[in-house]
Amino acid sequence: MLGCGNVGAALARLLLGDAKHIADRAGLNLELSRVAVRSASKERDAPGVEALITTDAAGVVNDPNVDVIVEVMGGISPARDLVLQALHRGKPVVTANKELLANHGGELWEAANAAGVDLLFEASVAGGIPLIRALRESLAGERIHRVMGIVNGTTNYILTRMAASGVSYAEALTEAQSLGYAERDPTADVEGFDAAAKATILANVAFGAKVVAGDVYREGIAGISAQDIEVAARLGLTIKLLALIESSPDGALAVRVHPAMVPLDHPLAAVRDSFNAIFVEGEAVGQLMLLGRGAGGLPTASAVLGDLVDAAHNLTVRGAARRTELHEVPLRPIDDLRCAYYLSLFVADRPGVLAAIAGVLGAHNVSVRSMEQDAPEPEASMRAPSGAGGGGGGGGEGEAHLVFVTHPAFERDVQACLHEVRQLGTVHRIGGLVRVVGN
Amino acid sequence: MLGCGNVGAALARLLLGDAKHIADRAGLNLELSRVAVRSASKERDAPGVEALITTDAAGVVNDPNVDVIVEVMGGISPARDLVLQALHRGKPVVTANKELLANHGGELWEAANAAGVDLLFEASVAGGIPLIRALRESLAGERIHRVMGIVNGTTNYILTRMAASGVSYAEALTEAQSLGYAERDPTADVEGFDAAAKATILANVAFGAKVVAGDVYREGIAGISAQDIEVAARLGLTIKLLALIESSPDGALAVRVHPAMVPLDHPLAAVRDSFNAIFVEGEAVGQLMLLGRGAGGLPTASAVLGDLVDAAHNLTVRGAARRTELHEVPLRPIDDLRCAYYLSLFVADRPGVLAAIAGVLGAHNVSVRSMEQDAPEPEASMRAPSGAGGGGGGGGEGEAHLVFVTHPAFERDVQACLHEVRQLGTVHRIGGLVRVVGN
Repeated sequence: MLGCGNVGAALARLLLGDAKHIADRAGLNLELSRVAVRSASKERDAPGVEALITTDAAGVVNDPNVDVIVEVMGGISPARDLVLQALHRGKPVVTANKELLANHGGELWEAANAAGVDLLFEASVAGGIPLIRALRESLAGERIHRVMGIVNGTTNYILTRMAASGVSYAEALTEAQSLGYAERDPTADVEGFDAAAKATILANVAFGAKVVAGDVYREGIAGISAQDIEVAARLGLTIKLLALIESSPDGALAVRVHPAMVPLDHPLAAVRDSFNAIFVEGEAVGQLMLLGRGAGGLPTASAVLGDLVDAAHNLTVRGAARRTELHEVPLRPIDDLRCAYYLSLFVADRPGVLAAIAGVLGAHNVSVRSMEQDAPEPEASMRAPSGAGGGGGGGGEGEAHLVFVTHPAFERDVQACLHEVRQLGTVHRIGGLVRVVGN
Repeated sequence: MLGCGNVGAALARLLLGDAKHIADRAGLNLELSRVAVRSASKERDAPGVEALITTDAAGVVNDPNVDVIVEVMGGISPARDLVLQALHRGKPVVTANKELLANHGGELWEAANAAGVDLLFEASVAGGIPLIRALRESLAGERIHRVMGIVNGTTNYILTRMAASGVSYAEALTEAQSLGYAERDPTADVEGFDAAAKATILANVAFGAKVVAGDVYREGIAGISAQDIEVAARLGLTIKLLALIESSPDGALAVRVHPAMVPLDHPLAAVRDSFNAIFVEGEAVGQLMLLGRGAGGLPTASAVLGDLVDAAHNLTVRGAARRTELHEVPLRPIDDLRCAYYLSLFVADRPGVLAAIAGVLGAHNVSVRSMEQDAPEPEASMRAPSGAGGGGGGGGEGEAHLVFVTHPAFERDVQACLHEVRQLGTVHRIGGLVRVVGN
């Protein structure tokens, strides 16, 4: 085992503490023989692991008594070199490292294919949810149309709290941090980088597409307000940060991460707190959803363990592994996206403003399905006390909040509208733009 | 392929119509070579399949050019003999036949193990949902505590309709029949026989338990009234027909199928219409749910196809199959169940009745969490018009409806209560007894 952090320690506890049960159920004996770490003196939450600790990672990879390598150290260096070295030596590798796969997956799968050994990575996306095996094996012959995933527990927790109690994004984030659901620097989660790495791996596995993390269109949730969520609920929608991978009839693939409004009766809408879920739409299988714990030491270790049993089984029967072969696929730019949009604008409370905005939308072929004028935001109403009629955000008059939901429109047209709307002196600011998906 | 009904025809369409896509994704070529049916003249919804039709099933099994057998004929005879024959000849078998596995699984797995070939059966439980592979492989080392499944789409459709529109069981059943979701003779579905077969297979796979269909405690949904569902909703619960397999600390296994009240915020509560879902609780993985289409030709064929790719892959790499080994496990009788109970009683509207019932409950250590007196059922109120004060169901007075929810109690104690309560002259009838689970 390379690394012994949260996931590694949990796996060590399972392998050292539940060996008999694992042997009974899996039909083979797994022996944790060596554990490579950076700091040998650090305490580990796994009784018995101390005797196995070494700081010589390359020595573990090259040890002829080690049959399978489990990489749970994370990061790209030195994980990349160590995994490649193991594969070159004909050793199967089980990894939980999404960053490594999302950036260097192609190279690693090629090395695994060349050596004819397993490179398994169930734990790299959505922790304990057995979705990689489902996509690679159960759906091996399926024509998959779309994968939509809630693959980041931190942001789902924040959005769930905002929806349930009406708190602001900042308050929900602070709460998530105090509970240990969010890191002190939450960027990787809230800006969608973590989800984008997972979207990459899903595109690799579900569509065989040669995609890397940098190819993913990405937006985070920091711009979502309590009011957006409240208005969404009135419209029968809720906001989730989704990883979306979608094939078009022309063969192009869209790979995106952004907040999306999902109908409340869609199975993804009911995915609460820090749970993860992946919704798959296939030609034959129809709709499928897998839900579970996307993070945490034990659920992730459970996924690593399943892979480890698989790799060990394949070793004992000399079976060759399932190959992951990627091919070049044209990527569909976000501009070509066509969906309904939720658009929130804070404008001067003055006659003619709505007409001007409607004119811009119409000129760009963006057709409005519904419009409502909302109560002003708390901050806005504090700035412009009711009845005062002055002191508003952008000008001398009060502020109104307009919420539009469009009929399906092209992203490029909606963005052109936003560009023009920003030029209107009567538009104080754009509150948010959220895509509506899932119907 | 043995059989060419709904699932067989859908699989033939995939294999004959989507061969290139399957070959690209799965990395191997599958050729549908022969299709054994009972009636060669019957029309099949799969262009090109006619040329492959034969009525000689044994001939297909024994054909040296046939590498893998797909059994989608259903039923026990002649499927059992044909599958055994194929396994004895060293041919992997993919089957969708829950009845066969639930009654003769042990014998079939032994034959497969002895021959060292695959016996795969993803399609036998919950159609397109990749749960068998998840339980056998992803969770191969997991200590599974409980599996709760909505594994029958017909009954879930009926219960969903009853909850959504307040119609009676009979009306919802008629509607399901007119939509093709329920058979003209709905016994296998509504009495829980179909779910019990699937519970058996889940017990085999998730717990390695030597269990057959006859071991399953089973109740159907015919006794559930619109009022039960309405009261449940007021209590924050909904009614689902569940297949439950649960291990106790003493090693005994409970295997049951019965209607259950599930908290509305439990993921299973949101499983609507004819969808299936399996909820798994494991020591390391935590909570996991897999949701999808549990029936229908194409979703089921998709699962068969995944297994077929697996079997073919194992053949090409000469890999030995995962073995299914069953061991004897003590079964926990329903009497030992301990949970909360919903109990609906129609009683004489007379002083002292509640005290008598409460006395019976207390004498058997069944503690009441809540009691409410409900409006009389429509039929009851027709028999005893309001204000008339007479003409009630069981005696000269009006009828009252009492609903109890107990604290966790033993089934044997609750059943003893029911027995005694039935003797009370003031209790007209027992409306229903539904177990509360999932919390």
